[in-house]
Amino acid sequence: MILEHAILEVEPSQTLEFELAFAEAITFLKRSPGCLHAQLEKCQEFKSRYQLVVQWRDLESHTVEFRESELYAQFRDLLMKYYIEKPAVTHYSLVATS
Amino acid sequence: MILEHAILEVEPSQTLEFELAFAEAITFLKRSPGCLHAQLEKCQEFKSRYQLVVQWRDLESHTVEFRESELYAQFRDLLMKYYIEKPAVTHYSLVATS
Repeated sequence: MILEHAILEVEPSQTLEFELAFAEAITFLKRSPGCLHAQLEKCQEFKSRYQLVVQWRDLESHTVEFRESELYAQFRDLLMKYYIEKPAVTHYSLVATS
Repeated sequence: MILEHAILEVEPSQTLEFELAFAEAITFLKRSPGCLHAQLEKCQEFKSRYQLVVQWRDLESHTVEFRESELYAQFRDLLMKYYIEKPAVTHYSLVATS
């Protein structure tokens, strides 16, 4: 299992619209076979910053299977107009858990 | 519930020692009453970067209750020698989940 963390900097005047659009966009993410779980989080210190955290079966489930799919095109098209920076995407593996 | 995300940049030659120290440090974190869950993740793109993700009951459970406790002093003392930068800590609330 691999965790994607994407930092999303949203136009400050459009955060509510972004959250509504995300509620639709997540349905495309969930339909990707390698997507095990996804959540959107809102930053407390920087109010127009969000973080998308997705559990993927493995790295290729995200970088190949999803990214090359029509589901990704629909997901991206719903959200990209709200970003004021290119999303910063990194992947992590689990080392320890409580 | 509030999610803490802390980006930890570790001395590249000391990652194994850091992971061993974290296995002990997490026991102090877990004993804090407001700590609901904690996990350490290792970055795939930057091999000496880690991310600590902690679910806290609320913001003050982390910033006041834990940070002012002896548990935090012991947690920090086990880990701080491995960091090559001050950890970047932000807090998030959950907006949407699959």
